Amino acid sequence: MSVTAAAGFRAAGISAGLKESGKRDLALVVNDGPLDVAVGVFTTNRVVAAPVRWCREVLSGRRGPTNRARAVILNSGSANACTGPRGAADTAATAARVAELLADFRPGTAADSVLVCSTGVIGVPLDMPNLLDGAATAVASLQDGPEAGHDAATAIMTTDTVSKEEALHLDGWSIGGMIKGVGMLAPGMATMLCVITTDAVVDADAAQSALSRAAARTVNRINSDGCMSTNDTVLLLASGASGRVPVADEFDAAVQELLGRLGRRLVADAEGATHDIAITVTGAVTEAAAEAAARTVSASNLLKCAVAGEDPNWGRVISQLGTVPEAVCPFDPDAVDVAINGVTIYAHGALGADRSTVDMTPRETRIDIALNAGDAAATVWTNDLTHGYVTINADYTT
Amino acid sequence: MSVTAAAGFRAAGISAGLKESGKRDLALVVNDGPLDVAVGVFTTNRVVAAPVRWCREVLSGRRGPTNRARAVILNSGSANACTGPRGAADTAATAARVAELLADFRPGTAADSVLVCSTGVIGVPLDMPNLLDGAATAVASLQDGPEAGHDAATAIMTTDTVSKEEALHLDGWSIGGMIKGVGMLAPGMATMLCVITTDAVVDADAAQSALSRAAARTVNRINSDGCMSTNDTVLLLASGASGRVPVADEFDAAVQELLGRLGRRLVADAEGATHDIAITVTGAVTEAAAEAAARTVSASNLLKCAVAGEDPNWGRVISQLGTVPEAVCPFDPDAVDVAINGVTIYAHGALGADRSTVDMTPRETRIDIALNAGDAAATVWTNDLTHGYVTINADYTT
Repeated sequence: MSVTAAAGFRAAGISAGLKESGKRDLALVVNDGPLDVAVGVFTTNRVVAAPVRWCREVLSGRRGPTNRARAVILNSGSANACTGPRGAADTAATAARVAELLADFRPGTAADSVLVCSTGVIGVPLDMPNLLDGAATAVASLQDGPEAGHDAATAIMTTDTVSKEEALHLDGWSIGGMIKGVGMLAPGMATMLCVITTDAVVDADAAQSALSRAAARTVNRINSDGCMSTNDTVLLLASGASGRVPVADEFDAAVQELLGRLGRRLVADAEGATHDIAITVTGAVTEAAAEAAARTVSASNLLKCAVAGEDPNWGRVISQLGTVPEAVCPFDPDAVDVAINGVTIYAHGALGADRSTVDMTPRETRIDIALNAGDAAATVWTNDLTHGYVTINADYTT
Repeated sequence: MSVTAAAGFRAAGISAGLKESGKRDLALVVNDGPLDVAVGVFTTNRVVAAPVRWCREVLSGRRGPTNRARAVILNSGSANACTGPRGAADTAATAARVAELLADFRPGTAADSVLVCSTGVIGVPLDMPNLLDGAATAVASLQDGPEAGHDAATAIMTTDTVSKEEALHLDGWSIGGMIKGVGMLAPGMATMLCVITTDAVVDADAAQSALSRAAARTVNRINSDGCMSTNDTVLLLASGASGRVPVADEFDAAVQELLGRLGRRLVADAEGATHDIAITVTGAVTEAAAEAAARTVSASNLLKCAVAGEDPNWGRVISQLGTVPEAVCPFDPDAVDVAINGVTIYAHGALGADRSTVDMTPRETRIDIALNAGDAAATVWTNDLTHGYVTINADYTT
């Protein structure tokens, strides 16, 4: 159901000739209102692509009204990153063209109400003739059914092997979304483009608060390969078309649930992965400390290789855990327990149960680290490191 | 020539039956004086193996005199890490046995003058009967020629494919060393055991200062796979047997040169690597900022895969560079230049020379990042990420 699950949205996903394969490569999501609330969270990379700069300017009110947008256009095939002034001009021209095309539907739609996202190879300029022609095709193809949402989710795929869509239907209102991303998944945000739409009646402050909190606990806790993108963007658009005003807690929970599900779809499709690894740290002094410890462990190539080889190598957990600065996450190394897939094979600084009793065959691998230093917990997701990852990233320019 | 290049040292490398393969697995280095100066630098991991705790206690004066040691015994086959109180007792028993065996050579040699190093699998207790028997064999095998140094360097190998020895002969004095390590090479120190010996007349303060400075600029700037060991140890022993007192600058430079050469040997033998990558950041505001930026870029699995595929993917350099916090390393992303193997393919925030002109075939790959923000520079070494790395680390417990 994706971005068309909520009332008030139409979408399209077409082939504009940006991908050599001829596959769908241009997605459009239009908010028909009555509201045009839009909020976002973005990569914390200091090197950001032109479309990220554009979106930040649009939403922050540096161009037109704050936190308002009527459409998002997303292309795959080029990230439009590190493309200099030309890249910025191309993004602005894309937004202007979409605004012009949409003016018949909603009079007064200006370039500063169109968000732009790009994904693909860094340093390759956009093919603007094809993109601008494609924008017209996309506008002409806009529909509000599930197929249109699926087409849009397909058009933003790069090395994704499946499209990624989720939706929730709540008490008289809905929220849905699409996401893409398979590599370069890391803190502060998995490499991704994500568009979430809702027909709930919410204001920009509530939407931003819900999105920021949800991102911090979901997509920002995925660390597939330690590489952060220049283009990460998560957008939330609200049409208000349901007429329902959810209570804040209900809305916050729905956004977190949806973004959590979308994030898990990323993990499940990560490049070359054969195991999804949930690293949960409990007994930390604060949630931030637990997250830092889990994130550090998630970055170990040695551990990720061990899981690929279905080896419950707790030594690689412990040695990586020991690199978390004490000021960030205090604990006593001799008080730590480590369980892998439910078997506590390291207990209070010494050998625990026999490692041969750990079943490493399930795709979902659980590594539970009890610090025994406090009451806070956090989970960070990563993947195993396989020959497939090396093949994908050594043999193709992405 | 290794640890026997300098006068006043004898060494042995024998098979004690600690490795299933039957290969050499126990090394001994003895300082016959007249001095018995010893200093060390160690892993900054909070989880440290029993032998690291022992060495720190011996050198810091918590056991016997400060910065004095007459011998180092090193085993492969087990890291004696995460082995609890038993591991600590085993290390102490090893030192006591070596002291006893050496008492005939140098009366008064006590356990607290014997350093102990271990490398191998984490969480596996030492095979003490074989180790103690082997210690006697090693003492009986001690010699001062190059073959003995080579045997010792061979006995500390784990998945190393070659032994690693270097020596420098200076103005009437010598310095030499052996090193091991191929994976788990990361900040703060490449995973390694390293023993350096010199016949220069130096005091402990001068030796510690030279070793700490050299380690910071050499082995601590290797980041092969981002994983820090529990056992990293670099020891420097001085016999004073040459009778020569080098000036401080000469001694410092020699230690740095030797440790730099030994570190490069680690990089060249890193697990599965087909390219050694020197990431040099210039134009930083401070050397620490340059090092932080180079270290961050060195951690990119995507970049390491690209180099394995001989793809000059500067986008993966720039996107990783952008994750360095501005407070740590200030620079303007639009002022950055990136050259790969001498070709500036990214210039001041935009496309530079044609990437097809970059020759990626040499084993040594140079990535030069000019921040254009200051005058400081630093180089961090890493390796490409290959199928070989995954095979070694997914298929074996190490």
